[in-house]
Order: sequence, then structure tokens, then C-alpha cells
Amino acid sequence: MFARDLATPCPSIGVDDPALDAARLLAEQHLPGIVVCEPDGRPSRILPGSQVLRFLIPPYVQDDETLARVIGDQSAERLTSALRGRSVREVLPGPPAGELAVCRPDSTILEIAVLMARAHSPLVAVVEDARLVGCVTLPRVLDALLGLS
Amino acid sequence: MFARDLATPCPSIGVDDPALDAARLLAEQHLPGIVVCEPDGRPSRILPGSQVLRFLIPPYVQDDETLARVIGDQSAERLTSALRGRSVREVLPGPPAGELAVCRPDSTILEIAVLMARAHSPLVAVVEDARLVGCVTLPRVLDALLGLS
Repeated sequence: MFARDLATPCPSIGVDDPALDAARLLAEQHLPGIVVCEPDGRPSRILPGSQVLRFLIPPYVQDDETLARVIGDQSAERLTSALRGRSVREVLPGPPAGELAVCRPDSTILEIAVLMARAHSPLVAVVEDARLVGCVTLPRVLDALLGLS
Repeated sequence: MFARDLATPCPSIGVDDPALDAARLLAEQHLPGIVVCEPDGRPSRILPGSQVLRFLIPPYVQDDETLARVIGDQSAERLTSALRGRSVREVLPGPPAGELAVCRPDSTILEIAVLMARAHSPLVAVVEDARLVGCVTLPRVLDALLGLS
């Protein structure tokens, strides 16, 4: 079984799109993560949901986490208004520490599993000719490896 | 809004339970991850799905990933039979690099968000008196922060 057999269509977001759209897309579609594409369409980051969540945490809280306790009752509206007008590029954390969770259409199921485990990513982007053709998610890989699919 | 308001019941697995059970639980219930508990009931690891997936990757493939390409067609049955009889403790990766994704029932929504982002974890265990009382998952936190819930 290869990546092309396991891939499903997957929403992506452009680096110049609003950061709030990325968080909303993730929340509304209950995605495990999101693929960020450059203006030329090339996927440049695969962000697990826990890293998209970071977009919503005000910088002053990330700098001084004791504030997270004090301002726990801050309204959602205040949080999201701070994010309004900022692009994905502006709120992206630094360059990824590990490798990009990207595979080819002919990658094997074990190659995808090794990549997911190493990149700590619940999804892998399937890329052909620098274009995103779909995503393989963790449940698909687990099902395939356990012989459930 | 506090952890106790956002928590949902969450399946856990004992360190001495079969590793295959952890992978099956994750696959069947489509969980984002799993809480591993010590024999005395104390949660000791919060494993994102991508790390439970690691249980299913044979050690010789983790040691030499080029094998993942060659043996891509190895049957699921052969993979799971290699895992049979091994406990969670036996297949756990080394000690976690970061902090444990654990909070108290009175942790604030922003504290949980900071913890998820820092621990790269799609779930946080809510613990009281060294007992697991539930989990907060990423979609719940996103919904709450975006004012969708």
C-alpha cells in the first residue's frame, strides 16, 4: 500500500492568508493539522494542531506563562481580535526543528509511519512536482498497519 | 473556563498492558493520543498518536529507515505478530524530552493552550491527587478560544 492509496484531500492555507482562518479551519473541520503553502503552491510547513493553537496564544503570554493563569478569563473575542489582520507568516514559529513531514505518492506505508513518528506529526503531505496532492492522516496509517482497512 | 469544564472521559492504558492494545484503542476510537498510567494509577506519559504509531514500527526499521522502502509490502499480520506479547513499557521510547502534558482541574484555558503548544501534544491529562480525572483535547481548546463553544 502506497501514499497515493491512503491520501485524502486536505485543506491547506497560504502563508499570506489570515492566521485566524487557519485556526478556524482546524477547529471547524476537526483536522489533526494543516499544510501551509508558499505563494507558488509549494507546501513549506506541516503544522500539527498544537502548533496552530500557538497562533491564538498572545505573545506576552508565550513570553511569561504565569500570565496564562491570571488572564484565564480573558474573553475569546479579545484573543481573536489581537490576531485579526495578522497573516500565517507573521505568527509562524521559527523554522521547523525537524524534517518536513512530506512524502511522495509512491512512499510505502512504513516510510510514512517512520516519517510521522520522527516528525511527531499526525499528518503527512503527499507532494508531487512541488504540488500538494493530498494528505495521509494518522488514523489511516494505524488502520493500514493493524490490518483494519 | 477551567480544565474541569473542558475535560472529557479519556481512555488510558497501563504500562504493563499489551502495546498492541494501545495501538488498537487509538485506531478504533480515533483518539489524538493516549495516557499511560503506572500500576498505582498515576499518569506517567501522555503519548500523542504519532508516538504510539512508533510501537508498530519494527526496531530494525527504526534503526535503518531505508528498510521502510524495501519492506513496504510486509503484511500487517507480520508487523503485529512481532509486537505480540510486548508491553507498553517495553516499547516506550526513552524518557520524554519535554514536560508532561498534565494540568490541574482548576487550570485555565490559556494555561492548557500554552501546555499543549509547548509539549506538542494534542491532549492534556487532567490530574487530581495523582489520579487521572479526564482529558482536554485540542478541538475543545480551539473551540473555547475561538468562542465556538
